[in-house]
Amino acid sequence: MHSPQQDRLDRLRQALRHRKIDALLVSQPDNRRYLSGYTAPDHGIQETAGFLLIPASGKPVLLTDSRFTLQAEAEAPLFEVVTYTRGLLKSLDKLCRKRDLKILAFESEYFLHASYLRLEKMAARLGLELRAESDLVERMRAVKDAHELELLRQSTALNEKVFQSVYQTIEPGMSEREIALALELTMREMGAEGPSFDTIVAFGTNAARPHAVPTDRILRAGDLVLIDMGLILDGYCSDMTRTFVVGKPDQTFIERHRAVRKAMLAGIQAIRAGVTGVEVDRAARQVLADAGYGEAFGHGLGHGVGVAVHEEPRLSPRGTKQLRAGMVVTVEPGLYLADWGGIRLENMILVTEEGAEVLNRDTTSLDL
Amino acid sequence: MHSPQQDRLDRLRQALRHRKIDALLVSQPDNRRYLSGYTAPDHGIQETAGFLLIPASGKPVLLTDSRFTLQAEAEAPLFEVVTYTRGLLKSLDKLCRKRDLKILAFESEYFLHASYLRLEKMAARLGLELRAESDLVERMRAVKDAHELELLRQSTALNEKVFQSVYQTIEPGMSEREIALALELTMREMGAEGPSFDTIVAFGTNAARPHAVPTDRILRAGDLVLIDMGLILDGYCSDMTRTFVVGKPDQTFIERHRAVRKAMLAGIQAIRAGVTGVEVDRAARQVLADAGYGEAFGHGLGHGVGVAVHEEPRLSPRGTKQLRAGMVVTVEPGLYLADWGGIRLENMILVTEEGAEVLNRDTTSLDL
Repeated sequence: MHSPQQDRLDRLRQALRHRKIDALLVSQPDNRRYLSGYTAPDHGIQETAGFLLIPASGKPVLLTDSRFTLQAEAEAPLFEVVTYTRGLLKSLDKLCRKRDLKILAFESEYFLHASYLRLEKMAARLGLELRAESDLVERMRAVKDAHELELLRQSTALNEKVFQSVYQTIEPGMSEREIALALELTMREMGAEGPSFDTIVAFGTNAARPHAVPTDRILRAGDLVLIDMGLILDGYCSDMTRTFVVGKPDQTFIERHRAVRKAMLAGIQAIRAGVTGVEVDRAARQVLADAGYGEAFGHGLGHGVGVAVHEEPRLSPRGTKQLRAGMVVTVEPGLYLADWGGIRLENMILVTEEGAEVLNRDTTSLDL
Repeated sequence: MHSPQQDRLDRLRQALRHRKIDALLVSQPDNRRYLSGYTAPDHGIQETAGFLLIPASGKPVLLTDSRFTLQAEAEAPLFEVVTYTRGLLKSLDKLCRKRDLKILAFESEYFLHASYLRLEKMAARLGLELRAESDLVERMRAVKDAHELELLRQSTALNEKVFQSVYQTIEPGMSEREIALALELTMREMGAEGPSFDTIVAFGTNAARPHAVPTDRILRAGDLVLIDMGLILDGYCSDMTRTFVVGKPDQTFIERHRAVRKAMLAGIQAIRAGVTGVEVDRAARQVLADAGYGEAFGHGLGHGVGVAVHEEPRLSPRGTKQLRAGMVVTVEPGLYLADWGGIRLENMILVTEEGAEVLNRDTTSLDL
């Protein structure tokens, strides 16, 4: 039986041949893991754990430095592992000559300008043609296969289990940091690789920042609590947001929470294969605008989730591409009012031919 | 009194005028924090929390999206905060015209090739000249001022306190993941923003991977334990590695540990203002080569530490620049043997005119 990586490489090679590209240099770390199984993370684009060179035919190559050689060999059995000691380009130069490559594509959206200047010099020396590609692997990643869907379901289920386990303990006197820490600790205890992004826990007015960072602020009875959390399980991410009140919510909270919930449901109802991200975003945004919160919703409605917590497709005013069956996206409308606070609700959704399947089961405060 | 940011901006503006650059677009997130005080982190280069536009004269600008507007205004009082709703370029276009900029520099080492292609189009439209700069701010950051040195000392001291607190509890039966988690938890409990990199805890043969990721492997009496850890305190990073045996070390371990320690001391002794990174690296590397472990030491000897855990200068065979007083670097020789394990020892060192000051006080196993 083929491994998922074998299938993905086959599909990519087909795309390369179709475009008459001799090889693709993969620099984007999520693409690297998706195609190879090699899990070493980058520490920012300036400290990469390696590159892939995927030729249209012939064995694919994983290039890395000596810190990662053993790990690469263990995790990426389909690849020839090349250890570079004097930077990527010296080894790449050799490989291009050895494999007689004439047209080399690179990932323009994840390749530094300075690196390009160096690559350009090498290409000129070798008579190699460079092609700036932008989303060859990202487009493959956007549509999930059965194996990936199962992992995304498991990641989502575990994320909810972690949320519930900590949610039960939340009470006045706890700090945002304390709750965020408990969530991240519980993720790991329950088997996750770690959070898929920095966990957001925000009380009251702090929730007016969509990307709030947990502080030492202490929870008081009646405060609203916004929790946006996700984890990585076997390489696949989850992402969920709930906003609730500890104690009895007042009418303002209930009215605003209902507006956001209604927007979320409108977004989900607009989803099916063939519609664009813009259309889904608009369906949810209209609900908030009608409720008088148009200005209070400043970000896009959602994003794809997979090996990266933010990936294709985008549900936003700029998401012009059509959704396809097998995509998994978040729907996460919110409203943010500096003097009051914020509410965001977020579920993960599988796009199907007929419509949408909500992967989340958690209903915390959704029945307000 | 000037804030540290004010002084840094003044120095940068001077450098810009010297180079006849009208403004620098800052995209590198550590540079952004260093110059502005704005702490929002990027989630990779593809999900930036904003940019700075530093004109040679006139008020500097922080460009971000609506998720971060409030935070930017609160944290970067010296800056005009501009919220872009349709991407950076639309707002940048306006600013370039409003400020009448003719020569715009950008950070080539932290600017995506695809973004450059878009910037190039804008520049052509405006008659703007682009300059690819590579380390204007990084060079400033490499030499620490008194304020930064104090923060680096505090970060190092807290890192050791966390290490000791967990070190005391290590015993057979614990897993690598468990110890790594305890370290990261203790960091936060003791007031750190978080780890400055993914904490490494590796037992026995797992330590043969210089960048090992903690696993569920269980510690047995007599195993060697390698811990490489660092934290961020008030924006400044620490970084330290210790390797020890739980129980009684055998002669092989003692002999190899002594070789690495000797290499570390040789590296430290080679440090003073005016020598190059190559020379320091060579001094330590020679000791390991003489002991028969030349092949077993595959990475560079060290790196600068500041707002980033890896920054200028590099101590490596490619670190051709001269060290300057006020730089803070790690010295971290190691040896890695696939069938046996690995040893790495790492301290943080302040470069002075006369030599080196070791910032670490921890002596765990260093007296073997």
